[in-house]
Amino acid sequence: MTFTAEQIAALVGGTIEGDASVQITTFAKIEEGTPGAISFLSNSKYEHYLYETKSSAVLVNRDFVAQQPVEATLIRVDNAYETVAKLLTMYQSMQQKKTGISEKAIISESAEIGEDCYVAPLAYIGDNVKIGRGTAIYPNVVVEDNVTIGEDCTIYPNVTIYHDCKLGSRITLHAGVVIGADGFGFAPTANGYEKIPQIGIVTIEDDVEIGANTCVDRSTMGTTIIRHGVKLDNLVQIAHNVDVGANTVMSAQVGVAGTSKIGEWCMLGGQVGVSGHLTIGPRTHVGAQSGLTNTLVVRQGGNVLMGYPAVEHKLFAKQAAALKQLPDLLKEVAELKRQLEEMKMK
Amino acid sequence: MTFTAEQIAALVGGTIEGDASVQITTFAKIEEGTPGAISFLSNSKYEHYLYETKSSAVLVNRDFVAQQPVEATLIRVDNAYETVAKLLTMYQSMQQKKTGISEKAIISESAEIGEDCYVAPLAYIGDNVKIGRGTAIYPNVVVEDNVTIGEDCTIYPNVTIYHDCKLGSRITLHAGVVIGADGFGFAPTANGYEKIPQIGIVTIEDDVEIGANTCVDRSTMGTTIIRHGVKLDNLVQIAHNVDVGANTVMSAQVGVAGTSKIGEWCMLGGQVGVSGHLTIGPRTHVGAQSGLTNTLVVRQGGNVLMGYPAVEHKLFAKQAAALKQLPDLLKEVAELKRQLEEMKMK
Amino acid sequence: MTFTAEQIAALVGGTIEGDASVQITTFAKIEEGTPGAISFLSNSKYEHYLYETKSSAVLVNRDFVAQQPVEATLIRVDNAYETVAKLLTMYQSMQQKKTGISEKAIISESAEIGEDCYVAPLAYIGDNVKIGRGTAIYPNVVVEDNVTIGEDCTIYPNVTIYHDCKLGSRITLHAGVVIGADGFGFAPTANGYEKIPQIGIVTIEDDVEIGANTCVDRSTMGTTIIRHGVKLDNLVQIAHNVDVGANTVMSAQVGVAGTSKIGEWCMLGGQVGVSGHLTIGPRTHVGAQSGLTNTLVVRQGGNVLMGYPAVEHKLFAKQAAALKQLPDLLKEVAELKRQLEEMKMK
Repeated sequence: MTFTAEQIAALVGGTIEGDASVQITTFAKIEEGTPGAISFLSNSKYEHYLYETKSSAVLVNRDFVAQQPVEATLIRVDNAYETVAKLLTMYQSMQQKKTGISEKAIISESAEIGEDCYVAPLAYIGDNVKIGRGTAIYPNVVVEDNVTIGEDCTIYPNVTIYHDCKLGSRITLHAGVVIGADGFGFAPTANGYEKIPQIGIVTIEDDVEIGANTCVDRSTMGTTIIRHGVKLDNLVQIAHNVDVGANTVMSAQVGVAGTSKIGEWCMLGGQVGVSGHLTIGPRTHVGAQSGLTNTLVVRQGGNVLMGYPAVEHKLFAKQAAALKQLPDLLKEVAELKRQLEEMKMK
Repeated sequence: MTFTAEQIAALVGGTIEGDASVQITTFAKIEEGTPGAISFLSNSKYEHYLYETKSSAVLVNRDFVAQQPVEATLIRVDNAYETVAKLLTMYQSMQQKKTGISEKAIISESAEIGEDCYVAPLAYIGDNVKIGRGTAIYPNVVVEDNVTIGEDCTIYPNVTIYHDCKLGSRITLHAGVVIGADGFGFAPTANGYEKIPQIGIVTIEDDVEIGANTCVDRSTMGTTIIRHGVKLDNLVQIAHNVDVGANTVMSAQVGVAGTSKIGEWCMLGGQVGVSGHLTIGPRTHVGAQSGLTNTLVVRQGGNVLMGYPAVEHKLFAKQAAALKQLPDLLKEVAELKRQLEEMKMK
Repeated sequence: MTFTAEQIAALVGGTIEGDASVQITTFAKIEEGTPGAISFLSNSKYEHYLYETKSSAVLVNRDFVAQQPVEATLIRVDNAYETVAKLLTMYQSMQQKKTGISEKAIISESAEIGEDCYVAPLAYIGDNVKIGRGTAIYPNVVVEDNVTIGEDCTIYPNVTIYHDCKLGSRITLHAGVVIGADGFGFAPTANGYEKIPQIGIVTIEDDVEIGANTCVDRSTMGTTIIRHGVKLDNLVQIAHNVDVGANTVMSAQVGVAGTSKIGEWCMLGGQVGVSGHLTIGPRTHVGAQSGLTNTLVVRQGGNVLMGYPAVEHKLFAKQAAALKQLPDLLKEVAELKRQLEEMKMK
């Protein structure tokens, strides 16, 4: 895409300062500016970059007052940060979408593919699969038998979706995601573990995004469920029969053990662990690397938790501060003991 | 599959109470019952679901006494829990197995594929690969040169098995598993790290199941070995030259560093870390997120361990309880000090 | 390959003791020796294996004095350990490299593939991709549009490289790696999270090796960058806009959150977590499972860190030792209190 600064100003309701005819072809952070790029300045901490940026144009707030001469063309808008988000979205929507069903894909005759879908070469679509209109299936994706996928989904390369799983609409699965592998269920016997068949499925509701190489296991019976609006980062593990509440967000490498139920609007930091058969209340925020076990503070929701086992974050901070003083405390108590002995002697 | 409650009762040696002709087509948990499903009641905590379930039939123990009227057909058996496990296994064995060697697979002329194998379209089988009878290779699996795979294995989509690795029989590898990538070995030099060639292999014995996106690295020399009956959950990391003892179980996201040797019948909780060159005694149980380093308690086996570095779990609990009291202890010691000073003054 | 012990001795400037004509076909650790293998003895702890090894030949240091008769042929060299590394490298370089562009690969007409490349069957190469000479692309790899890859790279099976990413030369990506999936960026609204488009890329410089199923996310704008000589182990997560300094090494399952900048020559142990927007000084070493947050000790570099939040490792050891004494300390303070009360009474 190529636009002039003037065209962009018109698009976003901005006013120009400087060369209105300068050509814009991409975005860049203000500190990484290149000719042809548009940047933005919102946080005054970054203002000094404005005077040296190589970007051709910079979005600034209307009330911004420059302290030095600026080489780039300025576009003044009500809110520079929000405007750049809008421009990014416009830019992405203008990228050419892939379309067409490749003859080099393997598609079962009993599969139903909606209109305006993209099925790449080397994708595999099993028996009785149903795919809604506008969904994109990238190369080397494997969709096993009886899976249903809704409309306008994006399934990136090398994803595997096991048989019978049900996906809603506007879902994004990044590369390497595995949906519906067997839950980890084995019964011990004298000679080894016997597999408990996992005959349930995974259900993913609308507007979910799942990061690269994340795994969501099928349930033993019934369904593992990822509710609408959930966002999972990369390398996350969701075990069998887990229920993740709407609009909950998990950072990378979080692990949730079997049958746990997580409330809506929760936020789990990176590498958090959730033990099995747990209920986490809604709007619970959990600090990175914490471990959740079954405590009242976890169940009630609305808390900010930290540590292993996780406690209310203020308590965690207090304990951590106290721990720092512990080596000195040991010395102090030894000294008190000595003094007390001395007094007794007298 | 469709059976009547009567047919199922005959199959499992049960007695019917209620409509014997009701049609059963699937399984469901008692709290998620649907018409056409069979459920079970074993734990009395769930009894209240029995009176409201929508399932068409429910397996109960022979001595169960209902406190309210039940709409579903009851099938009384000696042990409802064990019966459902048996039924699940029967159900799975009746699922139609995929068979046939696809012409859309890429199979080297020097590869040997046993009878009754399934090789899906888009699978890749390299030179001199040997695959035993009854093994299933799903779409987009890559089996590199000189690999041997035993009988009745299931290799799910997008698995990669590097060259020369040796797999036994009745092994399940879930989607995205990587067997035999190079061990992480580099020698530091002034200019950067030099790679230490990893010329060993991975050996996987019989009856092993490995979860989605788990990685088992090849050894520097010799072999990394996963012994018979081992079960690894998703996203586990097994480094080069590791030896995992028979019937050991690891939950998701466990990491085992290079050359460590883990005894048989161990259980490692989710996200546990095991440092390198470590020996873990047999029947060691390790709590989630713990970190194992080289201590006596780790080497001797038979312990339940917890924490980082992991200690005997009772000691961990004692330390955790003490930590909670630490902020108060600090205050208390300050007060004692004050009182002692006061007494000295006198 | 088959060599005699004599030929190997000539190759590495060694002298023979024993049967010079013995045939060598592989390597083995001295404790796992097999006929036809060559082993080495460097660490005297392993000397007892020398007298019972089944290997046909063993490399030893020139000054080594055997305490018992040795059946294997000895090859004496200046440094047995370095010699084996050299032999391993020679051995690997003699392995037949795969070559040729398969007709069963899907290659866009606008892609440019250099000389002496290997493109396997079932690989997918998108529009405008550029691949330098000598690079190997294994089966089921997906390289999306506009990616550039340098010379002599090895891209193992089932890797995904998203559009527009830039890779240097002599890079190894192990199976299942995902380069350039969207950064995890969402803006909260009343109804759910809105995606922030991720229009940046990933840049990987020369001589980088990345382990199986590791993920490196594309940046929001600009580029996520993995600098030259970096080595990442398996299942590592590198978030959007991260900058990993030259020759830094990360063990398996490390997670680095968004926009953090890691200095050169750092070493991060397994399962370490790095929080977002952090600067880690050069030559920082971090113990396994530690969590880095924004503290002076993290920023200044050159430290050995440990714990969560990570502190200087000597401080960590001191705190851990103190924690062990805490249960006793609690008792001791209670006793002091009692004694003090007693004295007051008097």
